[in-house]
Amino acid sequence: MATFVEITDPADPRLADYRDLRDVELRKHLEATHGLFLAEGEKVVRRAVAAGFTPRSFLMAPRWLDGLAAELGATDAPCYVVSEALAEEVTGFHVHRGALASLERRPLPPVSSVLDGARSVLVLEDIVDHTNVGAIFRSGAALGFDAVLLAPRCADPLYRRSIKVGMGAVFTMPWTRLPDWYDALPTLSGLGYTTVALTLAPDAVPVEEAVAGLDRVALVLGSEGHGLSSRWEQAADRRAIIPMAAGIDSLNVAAATAVACYVTARR
Amino acid sequence: MATFVEITDPADPRLADYRDLRDVELRKHLEATHGLFLAEGEKVVRRAVAAGFTPRSFLMAPRWLDGLAAELGATDAPCYVVSEALAEEVTGFHVHRGALASLERRPLPPVSSVLDGARSVLVLEDIVDHTNVGAIFRSGAALGFDAVLLAPRCADPLYRRSIKVGMGAVFTMPWTRLPDWYDALPTLSGLGYTTVALTLAPDAVPVEEAVAGLDRVALVLGSEGHGLSSRWEQAADRRAIIPMAAGIDSLNVAAATAVACYVTARR
Repeated sequence: MATFVEITDPADPRLADYRDLRDVELRKHLEATHGLFLAEGEKVVRRAVAAGFTPRSFLMAPRWLDGLAAELGATDAPCYVVSEALAEEVTGFHVHRGALASLERRPLPPVSSVLDGARSVLVLEDIVDHTNVGAIFRSGAALGFDAVLLAPRCADPLYRRSIKVGMGAVFTMPWTRLPDWYDALPTLSGLGYTTVALTLAPDAVPVEEAVAGLDRVALVLGSEGHGLSSRWEQAADRRAIIPMAAGIDSLNVAAATAVACYVTARR
Repeated sequence: MATFVEITDPADPRLADYRDLRDVELRKHLEATHGLFLAEGEKVVRRAVAAGFTPRSFLMAPRWLDGLAAELGATDAPCYVVSEALAEEVTGFHVHRGALASLERRPLPPVSSVLDGARSVLVLEDIVDHTNVGAIFRSGAALGFDAVLLAPRCADPLYRRSIKVGMGAVFTMPWTRLPDWYDALPTLSGLGYTTVALTLAPDAVPVEEAVAGLDRVALVLGSEGHGLSSRWEQAADRRAIIPMAAGIDSLNVAAATAVACYVTARR
């Protein structure tokens, strides 16, 4: 059973995990230093706990206690009970969905264990926007992908906003960081995956054609702004495009991923 | 040629169009009252002007003047030249992409003119999130849709964030509001469109099957949270689903739209 602790002082040091949730740079630093991540909203908190992540603490207004009674009954972590005004003052925004939890990150698994049995894999190079990372995890999970691999500089899937947009898909989808950016794609090819880069390159073929009949596929996606690095674009086994109407630059990366996952799942 | 006006007082009433851009409720009221919308960023401002919208004014720091020289040369509107600090103070956020413009809204066209020649149409019921509205316009435009119809309560495609996420697709895609929520779908059926509602309803068939061989199609999309109203779900000619992996609630509405547009465009 959680220890319930009522807190009325916004400067209370026990609230440190929950400070300034809108300050991305501060949060990145704080979360990396302490090996934690934040789950927001009853449903997402429940999914994080169900996926086996260990809570460090909970923070919520009294009206959210009932909804998470089972989770609070099964933990030794403290639950800080605060007014909604205090929650807002500490976190920096109105906490619509009420409950927050701070949970321990786990060591990232090796690539080999993430790929174990995986037939369809997403590989993200430098996606910058946490919303896009979350949306990509959610689409990948919904459309039958088995794993996600991230280049070293891709945005964090355990950042609060990624988790929220992904509806917790990051808790159940196997994922890890690639240790070696430069040789990431040739390494995947060596493991039996056909690497298919989504790109506007002139030799790109329609994605349906690029993935037709393949067994193991790794769909490779680049940054929102400038797309894939030339190294990754060239190192991929195939380059693919989603056919678009004349005069349109491109699809949003999350939309393109959804389409590409759908097509690839039906190869 | 624009009249260039240097402004150093953040309270200057000429900056009224640009106030508190993060305050959604205030902006909705202000934009409706004055019949204006805001375009943000050099590329989006350029597209708004190219699409024939009349500028009321521009607001920018000196370093953005060159990039919009052609647009500023072709208008009689004032261009307020301000420091980046003042722009931030007035708008309420750091204006990364620098240039802003306030433009006149145009009267919404009748449904008949939006549908003129349209074979593939998106119909949005109560999409709440401006990001999703923008993403849906962008995907629709990229994937070959001809028009968008909005239920009376759907979020505004000309809200700054919708425009930005949509990369200006709302300027070129024909769209309007449906005057009659209750009979909107039967009316479309009467005009020769097969209305296909995306839903998790038990009688939904895979979207590919639902649209196969159809001539005129209206893809019908509901709200992020609870989906379509029961009226619209039942009034649609067909109910369709994007087949998903076991245990997943649903796709994000923008991702689902991208997939459904892709499939429908290839019917």
